[in-house]
Amino acid sequence: MSAPIPIDDPADPRLAPYTAMRERDLIGRQGRFIVEGAVTLRLLLSRAARFRAESILVAPERWPGLADAFADLPEPPPVYAAAKAVMSAVAGFPIHRGVLAVGIRGAEPEAAALVPPGPAPALVLGLAGLTNHDNVGGLFRNAAAFGADAVLLDAETCDPLYRKAIRVSAGAALITPFARLPRGADWLALAEHLGLVPLALSPGGGETLADLPPLPRALLLVGTEGPGLPGGLMARARTLRIPMAAGFDSLNVATAGAIALHHLARLPRRG
Amino acid sequence: MSAPIPIDDPADPRLAPYTAMRERDLIGRQGRFIVEGAVTLRLLLSRAARFRAESILVAPERWPGLADAFADLPEPPPVYAAAKAVMSAVAGFPIHRGVLAVGIRGAEPEAAALVPPGPAPALVLGLAGLTNHDNVGGLFRNAAAFGADAVLLDAETCDPLYRKAIRVSAGAALITPFARLPRGADWLALAEHLGLVPLALSPGGGETLADLPPLPRALLLVGTEGPGLPGGLMARARTLRIPMAAGFDSLNVATAGAIALHHLARLPRRG
Repeated sequence: MSAPIPIDDPADPRLAPYTAMRERDLIGRQGRFIVEGAVTLRLLLSRAARFRAESILVAPERWPGLADAFADLPEPPPVYAAAKAVMSAVAGFPIHRGVLAVGIRGAEPEAAALVPPGPAPALVLGLAGLTNHDNVGGLFRNAAAFGADAVLLDAETCDPLYRKAIRVSAGAALITPFARLPRGADWLALAEHLGLVPLALSPGGGETLADLPPLPRALLLVGTEGPGLPGGLMARARTLRIPMAAGFDSLNVATAGAIALHHLARLPRRG
Repeated sequence: MSAPIPIDDPADPRLAPYTAMRERDLIGRQGRFIVEGAVTLRLLLSRAARFRAESILVAPERWPGLADAFADLPEPPPVYAAAKAVMSAVAGFPIHRGVLAVGIRGAEPEAAALVPPGPAPALVLGLAGLTNHDNVGGLFRNAAAFGADAVLLDAETCDPLYRKAIRVSAGAALITPFARLPRGADWLALAEHLGLVPLALSPGGGETLADLPPLPRALLLVGTEGPGLPGGLMARARTLRIPMAAGFDSLNVATAGAIALHHLARLPRRG
């Protein structure tokens, strides 16, 4: 790939998608999202990515370390080079790492399209009412680490393509398939429709995780750290708990999810 | 306990330990540390705490919700009440939650004093070269959740009583015993001296965690996410890996530690 296109003027219209970044984190970007940092940029450009990069914006000194990521792309996106001071002026806050990209969301898939049909094994993570971007990002990272087939989000759960969620996910939000359920969707009816055993992870769960037998097709449901999963759901699902020491606050929800995903994953063991 | 002592003047000498909070996070506090927020304050005042509170500083509107935490204390620390604007002026940045405390570090214990002598069971977490406060805080939270007896820190690992580390630990840094090893200390010699099986957790480990048999006395060693544990240590310890999906960055170190602690913990199972 040839050298990046230099831009000196923060008002250059090609940089418009990068302007007022924090304000637009809140109001949305009309089908676009922002990626920060080299690790996540490489995932956005990789074959594993589910999204197309619209453009890249890098500080000139970062380009030599990134050029190889563009080498095999049949239709590379435009790469703009601007000094960090210009990047910061456009974004509205200091851009220390000097690596940004704009991705295109595209059409959102249906949940059913992401889950391998039975009797093939399937491991799906369901996020119920998770409004913290750190937790959602962490859960995507853990879902990717344990090879989950998909992540399903209820209407209340926050956006995995929010800038900070992508960063905390170490880019997993760009490669792990996810779908948003309609408001008021019934997790248990969905699990039945998809042929998945619904498992509700909660400090008040009935079965101990370590005693759970192998399940070839599972939907692991996690909720917010405070209220947890809704009572109606807990009453109808198979509920799981992770034994913890008495007298201490429970685990972070992303950590609890990782422990359960590790138990449920069917990953090859070496040796 | 009687009502808090009102203070209106940010220059009041009783508030001196709360001044220039961020600068002093970096330069140290002569044997003191800062606790933020109601959850961690309650742990600092609880019987489980390893440290004494020197004073408390709260916004007046927060006091009614906190007073019960002082009810059973034989020698309650002084509680100062100041408007959030005064608290923010003292601290040097906005104090949104309106709950601060100063704790006293006291004498640091020796590692050997914290580990139950054999043949009693023992689970000890060892942190090697962890310089990120989020990771250290998260690992303390997970050590507390799984009832680890102690956390040992090498000379390079950052301070668990740093303000942010306490917050991320959900206060676990205040109740989980920890000791700092001298510079250059040999983890494996220490494990042998304490009668603990040294386990090195690493993506390049030899044994799969799930296949590890029960170990009544273990020292679980975790290192930084980038370089990981030193090669010399890996060559001499029993090395463990958590199987992960191909092609994705490894788990966060605090998350990997949680999965291993869950496997090693001997917590009662209900039912």
